[in-house]
Amino acid sequence: MSRPKVDDALLAEWNECGYYQLVGMEVTRANSAGSEFEIEIQDQHLQTHGTAHGGVLAGLLDAAMGLAILGRVPQGEGCATVEMKINFTAPAPKGLLTARGWVISEGRRLIVAAAEAVSGDEVIVACCQGTFARIPVPTDR
Amino acid sequence: MSRPKVDDALLAEWNECGYYQLVGMEVTRANSAGSEFEIEIQDQHLQTHGTAHGGVLAGLLDAAMGLAILGRVPQGEGCATVEMKINFTAPAPKGLLTARGWVISEGRRLIVAAAEAVSGDEVIVACCQGTFARIPVPTDR
Amino acid sequence: MSRPKVDDALLAEWNECGYYQLVGMEVTRANSAGSEFEIEIQDQHLQTHGTAHGGVLAGLLDAAMGLAILGRVPQGEGCATVEMKINFTAPAPKGLLTARGWVISEGRRLIVAAAEAVSGDEVIVACCQGTFARIPVPTDR
Amino acid sequence: MSRPKVDDALLAEWNECGYYQLVGMEVTRANSAGSEFEIEIQDQHLQTHGTAHGGVLAGLLDAAMGLAILGRVPQGEGCATVEMKINFTAPAPKGLLTARGWVISEGRRLIVAAAEAVSGDEVIVACCQGTFARIPVPTDR
Repeated sequence: MSRPKVDDALLAEWNECGYYQLVGMEVTRANSAGSEFEIEIQDQHLQTHGTAHGGVLAGLLDAAMGLAILGRVPQGEGCATVEMKINFTAPAPKGLLTARGWVISEGRRLIVAAAEAVSGDEVIVACCQGTFARIPVPTDR
Repeated sequence: MSRPKVDDALLAEWNECGYYQLVGMEVTRANSAGSEFEIEIQDQHLQTHGTAHGGVLAGLLDAAMGLAILGRVPQGEGCATVEMKINFTAPAPKGLLTARGWVISEGRRLIVAAAEAVSGDEVIVACCQGTFARIPVPTDR
Repeated sequence: MSRPKVDDALLAEWNECGYYQLVGMEVTRANSAGSEFEIEIQDQHLQTHGTAHGGVLAGLLDAAMGLAILGRVPQGEGCATVEMKINFTAPAPKGLLTARGWVISEGRRLIVAAAEAVSGDEVIVACCQGTFARIPVPTDR
Repeated sequence: MSRPKVDDALLAEWNECGYYQLVGMEVTRANSAGSEFEIEIQDQHLQTHGTAHGGVLAGLLDAAMGLAILGRVPQGEGCATVEMKINFTAPAPKGLLTARGWVISEGRRLIVAAAEAVSGDEVIVACCQGTFARIPVPTDR
């Protein structure tokens, strides 16, 4: 199969990185069909208005797009976020948020992806579109 | 003066909110000329490539734009991020990052702002443009 | 039915506006499921590299999002583009381009939509996400 | 000088391309400090609300960013728009619009630029930020 799914070891590696631990987000799936993430919004994620700070949602959707891409590119390849544009479509209250990412267009050097985050009551709280550069990654990963 | 600067009490309030504490970012100035922020990038902010996660930078610049707007709107008014677009222009290594935000265009309902983050060696690591909705805030603030 | 489709008279009105005539684009459908557009890329649409200028594609997708919104909002309401972000994912050669727009999220004041343009060989040449303000329109329309 | 300004022959070449002729926009300056454009908004540029269509402004600012980049990169190099995000900050009425573009960040493969368009009464009607890929161009240009 030319597009292996991201295996459990790679998911674990991502879930252990500093930022994922800091904000408490977790990637639960990443394969050629896209990625899925979960985060429990708590007091530590809030801005002064009492809902999740944009940085939490941007980090979540950046990651959801990135892992959707890792679920498609050949092994030995990774990606770096060039830019992203995110709309905050509804306040994100405390409680579970789920996110999913998917690839829109794969070019030789750049990949365009999208992602959205949904609150427990199925409201889209954020949606984004981003551009990623294909980059080589160390072969021992 | 119709556009009072954000006073020290308001800066303190922002610096105490959950997300600012979580990521360790601080607003050091916010007035009609714009805002300034600082963050020390540490292990907890990194993605697996060893540089600051996009979520950290997006949260920083979202805040820099938001506080630049608060430094201009009349008292009793606040803002909510409608959307933002951020370019990651260089890897953001561990160490001090500074950010500044400014207002590009003030409309009756929406305000457009921009922000950028600079590393210790004066390299722009991220720049963004965003749209904010003017909203009323509780008068006891 | 609370969300009537855009009727033929309104489609005709749009197709007759200056910009649509100038660039030669046509809206062929706009209802609650989204919009569809067609444009034949010709010499007049090209930049110096010999493919469609970004302005042509941006205008096409701006319109595709806008008409998708008009296909959903109540009569007497219109929309104005607040901002849009567009990725140019492949060169758009001479020949037929089709575009489609759809609504992602409807808020009380703002609506987020997306659109994409596809060339004759089914390649996505541009995709975008945009924010629109709901506005009243004159009742004689 | 390692970064020659765009010379008059190159400006003329751009001003003669199909899209510039179609919409009637003109680049009046492009050098290492940025670019300047002019367009006279007329009936042919309008949408049904009676102001310039977003496509006109997007094409103008895409070009303003692109020519600002051409004013900086070495000869033999060009650029292609990867993506752009544009805010429409005020209605653009009939009459003269001027635009200017500038470079924010130059990377080895990608360049980030910004641009804004201003109406005759000095109101910013659109502002944008975009990403461009550095590409080789035929040496006979």
